[in-house]
Formats: sequence, C-alpha cells, structure tokens
Amino acid sequence: MTRPRLMIPGPIEFADEVLAAMGQPSPGHVDPTFIPVFGRALQDLRTVFQAGEGYQPFILAGSGTLAMDSTIANLVEPGDRVLVIDTGYFSQRMADVCRRYGAVVDVLSAAPGETIGAGQVAGQLASADYDLVAVTHVDTSTGVLTDVAGIAQAAKAADALVVVDGVCSAGGEEVRQQDWGVDVFLTASQKALGAPPGLALFVASPAALAKWESRQAPVASYYSDWGLWLPVMQAYEASRPAYFATPAVNLVMALAVSLRQILAEGLEVVFARHRYVSDAFKTGVSSLGLGQVPTHPDHAAHTLTCARYPAGVGVELLPKVRAAGAILAGGLHPAIRNEYFRIGHMGIVGRSDTLATLGALEAGLRAAGYAVEPGIALAAAQAVLDPVRG
Amino acid sequence: MTRPRLMIPGPIEFADEVLAAMGQPSPGHVDPTFIPVFGRALQDLRTVFQAGEGYQPFILAGSGTLAMDSTIANLVEPGDRVLVIDTGYFSQRMADVCRRYGAVVDVLSAAPGETIGAGQVAGQLASADYDLVAVTHVDTSTGVLTDVAGIAQAAKAADALVVVDGVCSAGGEEVRQQDWGVDVFLTASQKALGAPPGLALFVASPAALAKWESRQAPVASYYSDWGLWLPVMQAYEASRPAYFATPAVNLVMALAVSLRQILAEGLEVVFARHRYVSDAFKTGVSSLGLGQVPTHPDHAAHTLTCARYPAGVGVELLPKVRAAGAILAGGLHPAIRNEYFRIGHMGIVGRSDTLATLGALEAGLRAAGYAVEPGIALAAAQAVLDPVRG
Repeated sequence: MTRPRLMIPGPIEFADEVLAAMGQPSPGHVDPTFIPVFGRALQDLRTVFQAGEGYQPFILAGSGTLAMDSTIANLVEPGDRVLVIDTGYFSQRMADVCRRYGAVVDVLSAAPGETIGAGQVAGQLASADYDLVAVTHVDTSTGVLTDVAGIAQAAKAADALVVVDGVCSAGGEEVRQQDWGVDVFLTASQKALGAPPGLALFVASPAALAKWESRQAPVASYYSDWGLWLPVMQAYEASRPAYFATPAVNLVMALAVSLRQILAEGLEVVFARHRYVSDAFKTGVSSLGLGQVPTHPDHAAHTLTCARYPAGVGVELLPKVRAAGAILAGGLHPAIRNEYFRIGHMGIVGRSDTLATLGALEAGLRAAGYAVEPGIALAAAQAVLDPVRG
Repeated sequence: MTRPRLMIPGPIEFADEVLAAMGQPSPGHVDPTFIPVFGRALQDLRTVFQAGEGYQPFILAGSGTLAMDSTIANLVEPGDRVLVIDTGYFSQRMADVCRRYGAVVDVLSAAPGETIGAGQVAGQLASADYDLVAVTHVDTSTGVLTDVAGIAQAAKAADALVVVDGVCSAGGEEVRQQDWGVDVFLTASQKALGAPPGLALFVASPAALAKWESRQAPVASYYSDWGLWLPVMQAYEASRPAYFATPAVNLVMALAVSLRQILAEGLEVVFARHRYVSDAFKTGVSSLGLGQVPTHPDHAAHTLTCARYPAGVGVELLPKVRAAGAILAGGLHPAIRNEYFRIGHMGIVGRSDTLATLGALEAGLRAAGYAVEPGIALAAAQAVLDPVRG
C-alpha cells in the first residue's frame, strides 16, 4: 500500500522535483552555481506575493515564527502601539511577539470561527494612535480567512503599518501585497509555497524599510536584525556572493524549484485551483453531515478545512483515517481543541489527493462507528471537481 | 567528469544516506514516524558532545549564528560581564551578540593565527568578576584550535559559565562537554556533524539551565527564548509530540542519520580519522612550499587547513582548483583575507577526498604559474595516510 498522504496544514505533499532538489549534494553557499538560484528565489518570492520594485524579500533559515519575530523585532520600538486582529492561535502568538519587543498591544478578538471586518478595525483605529496593525490572513487554527485588503486599507488611512501573517495563505490564497498596501507579508516554506519546513520568508515594503531605518532603539534580537541580513539579500539578488550566516542551501534550492512551478502554472490558476479543491473538500465534508469551524462560507479559507467531529466521534478518528490513507491534523485552537480536526489542501494538491483523502475520511468515520453511505463524499467532491482537470 | 568536491569549512560532502533522508517525502512534525527520529537525534547529539544526564540538547531551525544568539540571549542579563576569547571572525561575532543582549564585554584578542592559553585567561579572570567566558573551539577564519578544556577549568575556578562555539569542531575535534565543564556547547548541522545547513544545535548544562531559570530580566529575543523551546525538546525526547514552531523535519531526519553514522563509527575513531586526514592535508600543503595561518602546529585545527598563497599567487587560484576538481574557500579574517585560502576536511572525509583535493590544488597552482613537481603533495599525503584504510 502506498504511504498515507500528508494532508495537514503544513508540511504538505511536496513535488518530486522539490524533493529531488532537497536530496542533491549541497553546493557551497557562495558557489557560482548557487548564487543565481538564491537570487532567483528572492525575485520569485516578490513576484508570488505580487509586490514590485522597492519591496525587499528575505529568505532566512528558521521557521515561520522567525519570520514573525524578525518582522516585529525590526518594526516595533518600545512604546509603539500595535493592534492585533485576533482570529485564533497564531494571532495570540503575534501579540506575544509584539509585547516581547516592547509594544503596547491591543487585541481585537473574534470568537473561534468568526472573523473581524475592516469596518470594525477602522472603528478601533479611530480610538487610539496605532503604529502597526497585525492580521492573520488564514488562521491555521480555525480555517478562517480574513479580509486583508480591507483591513490594510483601513490601517493605511490611519497611517499604521500593516503586517500580515500569511503562513497558511501564501501560494494558495490570492495575495496582492502591493495593491493591498501590506508592509510586511510573511510566511514559511512548508505551506502552500511547497518546500519543506526550515525557511522563514517575508517581503518588506519601502515604508517598512523606512520605519526600520528611522528606528531610535536598536533591534533587540541579534539573529532577527534586518541590518545583518539586508546586505546579503541584496547581494544575492544582484548575483554577488555575500555572507552573514550560512543559508540553508538545500532548502533554498527546493524553494526555488517550487516558486518556479507556481509561476509556471500561473498565480491566477493556482488561486483558482485552491478554490475548487477547497470547494470539493467542503462539499464532501458537508455531505457527511459534518459542520465546520468557520461560521460562514464567505470567510472560510481555501487552503484548509476545519471540520467538526460528528456526535460520538472524537480524536480517535485521526489514526483510523491515517490507516485508511490520509494524515489529518487535530484541533489547535485552545477553546475548541477537541471538537474539530483539520484537513490541509494546499500546494500541488488536486483531484487524486482530494478523493484519496475524502475516501480515507469516509472509511475512518465508519471505523469510528459513524454511519456513512460509502462514496457519498467522493460523489459530492467529484461533482465539484468535474469541470476541471487536475 | 564528476562534479568538483566541496572541500570548504561547511557545507561539506554529505553521506548518500544523509542526502536520501533530505529527499524523502516530509513526515508531519507530530507524526508517530517522526517523533522517535527527533527524540533519538536529541539523545545522539548529547552523546556526541559527551554530555550526560541533566544536559539539555536543543535542535532549532536556523543557522549556527542562531545557536550563538539563543545561547547568549538566555544566559546573559543586562550588565553581566563577559570575557570573549578572540581568535578570529566568529569570536568578534560572539562579542557582538553578547553586547546586543546587554553584556559588558571584554575581549582578549590573539593575533591572526595565534591562540590564547588557559594561563592568560586565568590572569584576565583574576582582574574582574566575570559571569561568562566565551571561547571558539576552532576558529573557521584562521584554522586555530583553542584549548577549551584548560580555559573551561580556569573559568570554572572563577565561577563563570563557559560557552563554546564549536561550529567548526563538533563531530571532528575531540569534544568532552561534561568532563571539560562546558556549560553550552553549540554548533551547526553543516560542518563535521554532516547534515546540510539549516539547524542550530546546542547542549546546555544543568548550571546553564539554572542560570536561565534564575534570570531577572526577560529574554530579549522571542524566537531564541529557551522557555518556548525547552518543553518541546523534552517532549520529543520522551517520545511525546509537542508544538512550538514547525521543526525542519527533513533536516532533522538527515541529522539523525548522520549522528547515527558518527556513533556507529565510534567517537574516538572519528576523532582519529580527522587527525590523520588533517595531518595528510597539512603535510601535503607544506610539501608544496605553502605556509599556514596557525603559527604553530600544536594549535592548528584538524577540521580545516588555512594555507597561505605562495608568492605571486592570489585569489585567482580558487577557480583554477575548482576546475581541477575541488572547491576551496577564500580567506575570512579581515586582517589577512587575501593572503590565504581554506580547505575544509571534516565529516565523512577520507583518503579519496584528500588525494582528489591535493591533486586539484597541485593542478591549480601550476595553472596559476607556480612551479609544482607533479605528485609531490600526493606522495606526501599518501605517506601519512598509508597505515590507515579510509
């Protein structure tokens, strides 16, 4: 039997070409064969985020949390006022990071499964003088998609910088960093961008760089300091070697392959594919009688599905689904952790993954004692997938 | 023609089994197949550093500089007095990191190629009340090996913590963390430990953990805070899943393979192999009439050779050596950068790498116009390598 598919919200199933790049003998970090690969990955990252000239990409060895850390350590000065739009687990982390670097943090919290709209944010922004607004585009803990474009517009009107945690969105959801007015869009390698975990990725706007340049307080973290990394990123993009800390060369090569694949497929096609695969999963889950964490389809993410366990079924479902061919993730939001599970569907995901996963879910539910008409979720998904190829 | 061998002081040539682990489909970070691999890597890291129970290993996504950052951010409080033993480029970095986290730093500097002995350190320690002493075991910029055992003893006598940058030593030079009284021994994955770059590795002593626990000031860096990582490391080692930030799963799998290989070969055998390979390189380099940066063989590292260019030859040598089959590194110490080059010989290195590299060096020197009797370095190395197999 083939190994179970990894259908969690990252790491995901990676393309064969990406894994081949991972397994290559490592080049030296200033080798003439590696410099253009790193340079192109930086350029492609900017392109995938739909940011233009003057926007500075960063690729650092570390997790997505390092991307948050580096962004906030450089943009926040002690006493700065930050508004965190809280849609779940990672918004709370963002608030923690902001406090660590001396910010006065207000948190605008949604109930689990709810989002927060631009109007509500604008109202809060009118109540105090905020320096920075932080938003989670897709909350990995709830599957909630938040209106980054609208919130960024409200923040810009209030003269605040906008930081977006795009860990579970970039490469799957529509992202238009420059058009939307996002100052730092950050993510990690192992989600929809399609490379194994170990890279912190972000792109900073000219306004973000200006805020960093005009800091009075030194950056509190050494490893996260843009001043140490910026010359290196600029050098590699200009095809010159440079050194601060050794890049994770195999991961960078893998990311370079994956970014090329995304751009070759076309961003709009990639976004559309994530939408219909998501529709297929959500239709399939509904056909099984399962609810979802997001309280309305309009603010449900297209990169994962957070499905509620049916009555009488709990976390014991997941090993049964694994045995039937698909690895899913448990709940993460502390308030509802044991009430739901998560299906990741991002990156190179298509019809076969969708059907294999829903088939394993059907089987797992039956093994857990929940009555399922065999094939009902498959038929529901297939009807949605029908018009498309992949 | 086979690709040129990567003979720089990291990244290095990695074992096929390590690269195969890199290229595997990624497991989930809390998958039952991954948890024991991570747990065993933590245990093996402790064993390779020759540290015992109560010593806490950490494996983080990031570069070796993150290992320095995390160590100092957690062990230094503002106003702490730190003595940095400066033998080159990375000692200066250690001093910068200590200052970033509020330390009052004194630097005891050696001229390039010199080391600093325990006696000199003891003298300095008598002059003020130091909280921490930082030493670079092998300075990657000069090839100098420093007497960690002696300096640690002097520091313990002065009641100071001892932090050792072992980036270019661990897995190649003899390391006895517990016997020597080293409180944090840190390294990166891509050197003699033999896995691709992207992991920050360190092991903390009970005294280091106690100092961290008794801190008054919060840890200034979020990403580097032991408080966030410690429960995760402890859980994985106890075969339980845990989550703070997604581990770099493929790199962890690769490191786990490499650590097993090191322990299967046997630490004493590994140390001895690095010594004789180093002797072969240094004998070969000398036979070519080239000097070395370390001013005495007694304090020359066994993981790399820093050779001086002969008269009339400069950095243009390196592409010629590359064309002849081996990738070497340029100089790194700012004071002598263009006067020398570096040959890394660590990890799975043996006879064939040694001969291929010295052969490429001979050819490169001839192409650069330096008279070389063909085979002289090979014969010199072969005479040293003769009694041994690999």
